[in-house]
Amino acid sequence: MSEQIRRLDSRDGDFFATLDALLAFESGTDEKIENAVTDILNAVRTTGDVAVIEYTNRFDRLDARHIADLELPREALDEALASLSDAQRQALQLAADRVEAYHRRQRAESWEYTEADGTRLGQIVTPLDRVGLYVPGGRAAYPSSVLMNAIPAKVAGVKELIMVVPTPGGERNALVLAAAAITGVDRVFTIGGAQAVAALAYGTQSIPQVDKIVGPGNAYVASAKRRVFGTVGIDMVAGPSEVLVISDGSGDPDWVAMDLFAQAEHDELAQSILLCTDADFIDRVYASIETLLPTMPRQDTIDASLRNRGALIKVNDLDEACAIANRIAPEHLELSMEQAEEWIGKIRHAGAIFVGHWSVEALGDYCAGPNHVLPTMRSARFSSPLGVYDFQKRTSLIQVSEAGAQHLGPIAAILADGEGLQAHARSARYRVKG
Amino acid sequence: MSEQIRRLDSRDGDFFATLDALLAFESGTDEKIENAVTDILNAVRTTGDVAVIEYTNRFDRLDARHIADLELPREALDEALASLSDAQRQALQLAADRVEAYHRRQRAESWEYTEADGTRLGQIVTPLDRVGLYVPGGRAAYPSSVLMNAIPAKVAGVKELIMVVPTPGGERNALVLAAAAITGVDRVFTIGGAQAVAALAYGTQSIPQVDKIVGPGNAYVASAKRRVFGTVGIDMVAGPSEVLVISDGSGDPDWVAMDLFAQAEHDELAQSILLCTDADFIDRVYASIETLLPTMPRQDTIDASLRNRGALIKVNDLDEACAIANRIAPEHLELSMEQAEEWIGKIRHAGAIFVGHWSVEALGDYCAGPNHVLPTMRSARFSSPLGVYDFQKRTSLIQVSEAGAQHLGPIAAILADGEGLQAHARSARYRVKG
Repeated sequence: MSEQIRRLDSRDGDFFATLDALLAFESGTDEKIENAVTDILNAVRTTGDVAVIEYTNRFDRLDARHIADLELPREALDEALASLSDAQRQALQLAADRVEAYHRRQRAESWEYTEADGTRLGQIVTPLDRVGLYVPGGRAAYPSSVLMNAIPAKVAGVKELIMVVPTPGGERNALVLAAAAITGVDRVFTIGGAQAVAALAYGTQSIPQVDKIVGPGNAYVASAKRRVFGTVGIDMVAGPSEVLVISDGSGDPDWVAMDLFAQAEHDELAQSILLCTDADFIDRVYASIETLLPTMPRQDTIDASLRNRGALIKVNDLDEACAIANRIAPEHLELSMEQAEEWIGKIRHAGAIFVGHWSVEALGDYCAGPNHVLPTMRSARFSSPLGVYDFQKRTSLIQVSEAGAQHLGPIAAILADGEGLQAHARSARYRVKG
Repeated sequence: MSEQIRRLDSRDGDFFATLDALLAFESGTDEKIENAVTDILNAVRTTGDVAVIEYTNRFDRLDARHIADLELPREALDEALASLSDAQRQALQLAADRVEAYHRRQRAESWEYTEADGTRLGQIVTPLDRVGLYVPGGRAAYPSSVLMNAIPAKVAGVKELIMVVPTPGGERNALVLAAAAITGVDRVFTIGGAQAVAALAYGTQSIPQVDKIVGPGNAYVASAKRRVFGTVGIDMVAGPSEVLVISDGSGDPDWVAMDLFAQAEHDELAQSILLCTDADFIDRVYASIETLLPTMPRQDTIDASLRNRGALIKVNDLDEACAIANRIAPEHLELSMEQAEEWIGKIRHAGAIFVGHWSVEALGDYCAGPNHVLPTMRSARFSSPLGVYDFQKRTSLIQVSEAGAQHLGPIAAILADGEGLQAHARSARYRVKG
């Protein structure tokens, strides 16, 4: 069992080398997958519906003859919602309401200002016209993922949100469809894989081209998204999920152990790390892990993840813990401490910070309000949680007055001349009188 | 000469097919470049300084022995600034001041709110720690590009801005270095190509790793940036520059012709398109092109660009022109019209809108204030001008109160159970009392 979870000490001579090795993760590319995706993208791009139907029938063992056979009517979503237990339906709706309330605060507004000479400058913020939402089929089909991707798009004002979700062997996930009903997804196609990404990116006779594709997927989907980037926008291609818990030794070691498990149960590559100032508390967490692990339905995955990529790390003090956290730039950071809020300002890089013993990551995953799509693999150094801003875009507004052109024209012309761009210079000078 | 610039009419039966073909542009990938970049990235990653020095000496014909030989001291930047004419220095400073004033309005601030039960939610906005700015050497070395990339980073609060600029044969561009002095670039290394991108992305013994790399470059630089994306952030890889002019037939046809030239003079792949409701005015613009072209120093480039990718298009009315503009989603859109401001609301997709006859694109390129790094190749459908927001990142703040955990815990647990994630569910239930 998990007796093999690493135990490190920041005083170890090779600590930072060991830590860096533990954090290192290269997704790499699989040539077989890349080649298959190339073929699928080309086929969908050139033959459209025909290719989408053929791949879908082949990979998902269906018997569709038209794209219409692969589109779910609104009633199918409403039925899925009605089929849930009251508790599930209410939980989904409450979660959606809270996520929407939080994301409403992210909406950017247009602004402008007028200068003394009448020149008007500004930034126009508009929603994307049409967005595609990829939802995996099978085991990794998460209704919470539908909420977290669809709600920011809708709050941004995206006019048409198109969901694609494969139904291998015809099997539908009622929770996923119910989440689509609640969030007001406009159309749902039961297609998946690289063929679904291609259909959304290029458009087909029956499936409209979108402007951006978001949502998680397997290696084929990730490869296809990378390849169509440019033709459409994409969200970040996510790596394995991560949690970093900083503990001052206060609180219940069972809670910490279970929080580490919650990350580890995602998959064997997920990463759960504890930084703790108290060696005795680390022993107690270790004991909790040993006691609790056999009780977990997904104990094999948790065990493999903790052994492969987990660590319990003794640190000297909380300042050092924060410095290490900034180096790791974790997707999820739990400050499992008594005076946790006092340490928030020390954290420069994290996708989300969970402050204090009550703020367990699972609340953030489902219903606290903030998005659960967060930057992984140290990318919190330069990127942000998925948000409304990912579904809005900006256009610069430049309305130079006649008077403005008189003093801006010569500046532009001098700089354009310096760059050897004479048509730039002359077009600016045309606007300068006499 | 340019008698071969296309003249189209939106009433032509095949108009939209012709337009789409004209807009189509695939940058493609060159295997030779990809392989060379792979080797360079690997070499810099494994041997650091040694590889950077070796490639720089080889490609830029230098004789450096240490990275220190390739770093410019602050005095070199100040001397470059002092070496400019008064007119150039003042133009650069005035442009920088205006760009800074505009970008200050883009700065996002942290926010938070507290719910009735004491649960605190928010979004913490922080600048990136360290950013790399790539500046090309040689012909395409534009001081305005230094302003447009460096100023938003500095306004965002980036602590360290590192510029790389190759100096082939030791030749330095005084305007570029002066722009670095004015914008407060922190360090400058005279390195370029894929080796410079690699040094910034991975860090070497002497060059610190950055969190994001921005700025234009040749095919090697673009390939290297794409490859290191994930390890660091990057800005968009730009396509050829584009202008779309919508004209109602008012104004001076020479101005319109010169505005089309200003785009076309960038390179042969640049795209200049006019949409005009007035056939006579199109004839006059055509005549202006013929008259003015022979007077332009870069007439060969302009001519090739107009013939390859330009068009003068007769449209039925301004509504149709706006609809076509939204299809094109141009990088630069000039509304060369009498009541231009009334049409702004019809435009959904454009990098920047220049409103009215006085608002020539060249003013926006240098000194109006908004950024000149804009989305190309129809990506204005889903992306934005470079801005302060590209140098800030967000962290979600989740501080659930004990009371909050009592009602959020059960919601999260129900949803986690529905997704088969029992550790998530249990970690939430631990926080629910009784």
